[in-house]
Amino acid sequence: MTASLLEHLIDALRVLPGVGQKSAQRMAYHLLERQRDGGRRLADALAEAMERIRHCSRCRDFSETEVCPTCASSARDAQLLCVVETPADRLAIEQATGFRGLYFVLQGRLSPLDGIGPRELGLDLLAQRLEEGGVRELIVATNPTVEGEATAHYLAQLARARGVAPSRLAHGVPLGGELEYVDRGTLSHAFGSRSEIP
Amino acid sequence: MTASLLEHLIDALRVLPGVGQKSAQRMAYHLLERQRDGGRRLADALAEAMERIRHCSRCRDFSETEVCPTCASSARDAQLLCVVETPADRLAIEQATGFRGLYFVLQGRLSPLDGIGPRELGLDLLAQRLEEGGVRELIVATNPTVEGEATAHYLAQLARARGVAPSRLAHGVPLGGELEYVDRGTLSHAFGSRSEIP
Repeated sequence: MTASLLEHLIDALRVLPGVGQKSAQRMAYHLLERQRDGGRRLADALAEAMERIRHCSRCRDFSETEVCPTCASSARDAQLLCVVETPADRLAIEQATGFRGLYFVLQGRLSPLDGIGPRELGLDLLAQRLEEGGVRELIVATNPTVEGEATAHYLAQLARARGVAPSRLAHGVPLGGELEYVDRGTLSHAFGSRSEIP
Repeated sequence: MTASLLEHLIDALRVLPGVGQKSAQRMAYHLLERQRDGGRRLADALAEAMERIRHCSRCRDFSETEVCPTCASSARDAQLLCVVETPADRLAIEQATGFRGLYFVLQGRLSPLDGIGPRELGLDLLAQRLEEGGVRELIVATNPTVEGEATAHYLAQLARARGVAPSRLAHGVPLGGELEYVDRGTLSHAFGSRSEIP
């Protein structure tokens, strides 16, 4: 028996998403055999991240500081506020687009059945921010799922009631996709929203 | 920007086998959002395992102690010695079979081109152990690959030269397999090694 420390490590690795018993075993052996230093670095990075990463008080994204670098930056356009569900969505937009405005991270979506309402998503914070003025456009970038759309609807109302123009991402045929394989709803929407070729 | 601690964590997670940029991101966000405690436990388990797990001086398997619990156990049959390539192989045999003898873990296989010879596999240690007497049968459980077979051949000679009988795992059709999908080499071997139905 390679006993408890190893078993303990294999068990602990299963906290990672998509990692079962077999993968955890493989990871543990890999680290022990070939990546002791990498394993130590990972332990340090994990410990520090779990301890020190919290939420930005302005946008609710993960941050090491009270206010995250994006919110604190004077180079960003504070008139544009983009609302996303998760930090991963925010990162995807930041990496894919040239957006230079600010973000607001809901850390979820409206889901009354799971007990997730406006308060859990920090919408009071968002409302207060819109009331302060300064925001011209609220770009709603929630996911195109049922709950995401409901959240988008709620956010649009919240913005309009405070004199801020809401907008949302365009829906349509994905670039590089083949019409034959695009789902009906998307195709129907893209067809209905067709635009003139200039 | 969610800045350096998070980026650092994502980078560090890529040391795990089969984890690329996207999976590492997903893991980091998952831990931060939902598994802070699990993340802390993982950090501790990792740090301790990387620091304290070393190799058993008898069987070369991973162990927290100078001699691993299996080698130290008086309940195991020291006349039977099973040689495997990796700790994972040893674990697989331990879990699948009722084997009550001892193990010897090569931590690799003979591979001259990669500079892995008898010395790197601790075969001097194994030879010395066989010379001490007490071992009746050397069960060679290397993988049925070209390098594994070459290693098995070498081990068999090493055992015979010291008056120990070498044996190896049976090759044949896997249980639950369909003949149609069994590779030719295996099928040919299984056919040639057919046994009488008692």
